[in-house]
Amino acid sequence: MPNLSVTRRTRSTPFTRRVTEAGVKGYTVYNRMLLPTVFENVEADYHHLKKYVQVWDVACERQVEVKGPDAAKLIQMLTPRNLVKMNNDQCYYIPVVDETGGMLNDPVAVKHNQDKWWISIADSDLLYWIKGLAVGGRLNVDVFEPDVSPLAIQGPKSDELMSRVFGDEIKELKFFRHRKISFNGKEHTVARSGYSLQGGFEIYVEGSVHGEPLWDALFEAGQDLDVRAGCPNGIERIEGGLLSYGNDMTHENTPYEAGLGRFCKGDTAKDCIGADVLQRERENGPKRQIRGLSISGDNVPHCQDTWPVIVDGDKVGQVTSAAWSPDLNTNVAIGMIDRTHWEIGNQVKVKTPDGDRIAKISKLPFPK
Amino acid sequence: MPNLSVTRRTRSTPFTRRVTEAGVKGYTVYNRMLLPTVFENVEADYHHLKKYVQVWDVACERQVEVKGPDAAKLIQMLTPRNLVKMNNDQCYYIPVVDETGGMLNDPVAVKHNQDKWWISIADSDLLYWIKGLAVGGRLNVDVFEPDVSPLAIQGPKSDELMSRVFGDEIKELKFFRHRKISFNGKEHTVARSGYSLQGGFEIYVEGSVHGEPLWDALFEAGQDLDVRAGCPNGIERIEGGLLSYGNDMTHENTPYEAGLGRFCKGDTAKDCIGADVLQRERENGPKRQIRGLSISGDNVPHCQDTWPVIVDGDKVGQVTSAAWSPDLNTNVAIGMIDRTHWEIGNQVKVKTPDGDRIAKISKLPFPK
Repeated sequence: MPNLSVTRRTRSTPFTRRVTEAGVKGYTVYNRMLLPTVFENVEADYHHLKKYVQVWDVACERQVEVKGPDAAKLIQMLTPRNLVKMNNDQCYYIPVVDETGGMLNDPVAVKHNQDKWWISIADSDLLYWIKGLAVGGRLNVDVFEPDVSPLAIQGPKSDELMSRVFGDEIKELKFFRHRKISFNGKEHTVARSGYSLQGGFEIYVEGSVHGEPLWDALFEAGQDLDVRAGCPNGIERIEGGLLSYGNDMTHENTPYEAGLGRFCKGDTAKDCIGADVLQRERENGPKRQIRGLSISGDNVPHCQDTWPVIVDGDKVGQVTSAAWSPDLNTNVAIGMIDRTHWEIGNQVKVKTPDGDRIAKISKLPFPK
Repeated sequence: MPNLSVTRRTRSTPFTRRVTEAGVKGYTVYNRMLLPTVFENVEADYHHLKKYVQVWDVACERQVEVKGPDAAKLIQMLTPRNLVKMNNDQCYYIPVVDETGGMLNDPVAVKHNQDKWWISIADSDLLYWIKGLAVGGRLNVDVFEPDVSPLAIQGPKSDELMSRVFGDEIKELKFFRHRKISFNGKEHTVARSGYSLQGGFEIYVEGSVHGEPLWDALFEAGQDLDVRAGCPNGIERIEGGLLSYGNDMTHENTPYEAGLGRFCKGDTAKDCIGADVLQRERENGPKRQIRGLSISGDNVPHCQDTWPVIVDGDKVGQVTSAAWSPDLNTNVAIGMIDRTHWEIGNQVKVKTPDGDRIAKISKLPFPK
């Protein structure tokens, strides 16, 4: 891995000192902020995540707060997902599109009430899009980045760890629902969510000063659970079919291409910017779509860029993420495959930097 | 320096292969793209830049193309700088602000004609802001990121190198003016500009496929000029008072605070979003402003975050960039200092991670 020059611009988080003390070995930059990528090594981190519990510095999931009488109207403009029935304690995964139907981000919307929302963003400055729409359209809202830094608790022992610190009630929190917890006299929002399939929570830490005390409380309470500092895991998230905006889909892709059609179905919100374009694509079907691929042979190299997917000499798609899966005993990958070749079970060729490999189209998440 | 995990999301550039071959030793991520930070070492790169000529991969200066009948109107909404007299071959450095007067970016506007502009951006997704304003305000423009990747030629031998490849006419190009050059049968825009005070050009390479051939042509023509791969230099740019958005100023700051009042003076454009707020600040003066600081003692550590500036126990500002300057024989720094203490020559204390240092407020650029 090359070296990363860290400055104020590649922002540190309220947890960076603890992450450093925990021996972080690599970072990426996500929303102009440090996001850890590896602690022991990616494979050891993966095994630990599936068996115990980890605390992740995901402060880079910055919040865009939208507040005011036009908040609900503005949020519905962002996404084809219909938000009419959303409750005040719900989180919704919402593809965000522009007027061409191209994806700008795939955040989680956290609804506090009709007039107050957080948009927990993937890697693009969605703040600028939402603010631009508000100012350009003269909407009555404030749009800003609050001092909120998510900390994720992930892994099968998450419920045990969280209940030790916040009480047994936390175990009753349902998937993609949120509630308030109190810590050191300050309220924070916690949701049952996170970028893994191992179960867990995300604590939206309000106020940077609370970061280290909260981190320390979790580690103190979880010593005998073998709690460790962790991070989104490159193997586990591919196995689980969790997409990465900027890797697996970009502005070049629609939600249908990204396999997110289930969030656009039914009474697609007419107020969504791009609704007309998406309606046409819904009728015609997308030309290409996200698929899993199991790639033959031993460990593929690190996927730094797109790898062409070839059939009979023609390019029919590309791989965008790939890793060796110890549990599935194959290389797992995510890619975008043309309609002509996207059927599950099809055989294709993938051009990796180390040479061509045979691969098979798979469902996502990968079957166990 | 920690390790950087590179994926498709931290985009490679049309020049990344050549940069790797040239032995790049560090990167930052800028506009979600790789930007080299060091080749031999920062000090050796600095001496070479001041004496010879370097080729810089600054593809991360992404372009936002604004095209259509409302283009000029939209561009003027972005900035307090009056664009009425701007010619079709000019580049303008434009502070971009939101409705609160807070800076969103400090790009260079490249005007092709009234209906076609490029905004060459610093590190924030200005594409989303401009697009949001256009869609929200129903303006008749297309806003998109074209396949254009700037390559900078910087250093005192830049004119000599450029004329060898593109002919003697290029020497007549004036500062912040642009013109077309032809290379391998394709036209590209070239401007006399760049992020150093050593003189030079920026070639806006249109079409990624032309990146490597152009790079190779420059290195072939410049062998006896000791042309090298380089990058924006952390020492030289501080000496020269060149600001870095995200480091030296952020959305928390107005253009006046960033010392960019000269771009807001006179008949400040009334169409600029934030014009009213800026007008008030112009009358009252900013509360704090960018200054140089010369910091005593031997080499300061790498500046990864803000360092408090203290007088009589009170915080009166912060340092945001700092480096040892071999030519000035002192540590040079850029910071934001409160009005009460910003006078040139004032003595202050800077809290570095290695301990307190005495410093003196200085003009920018630093006097030689």
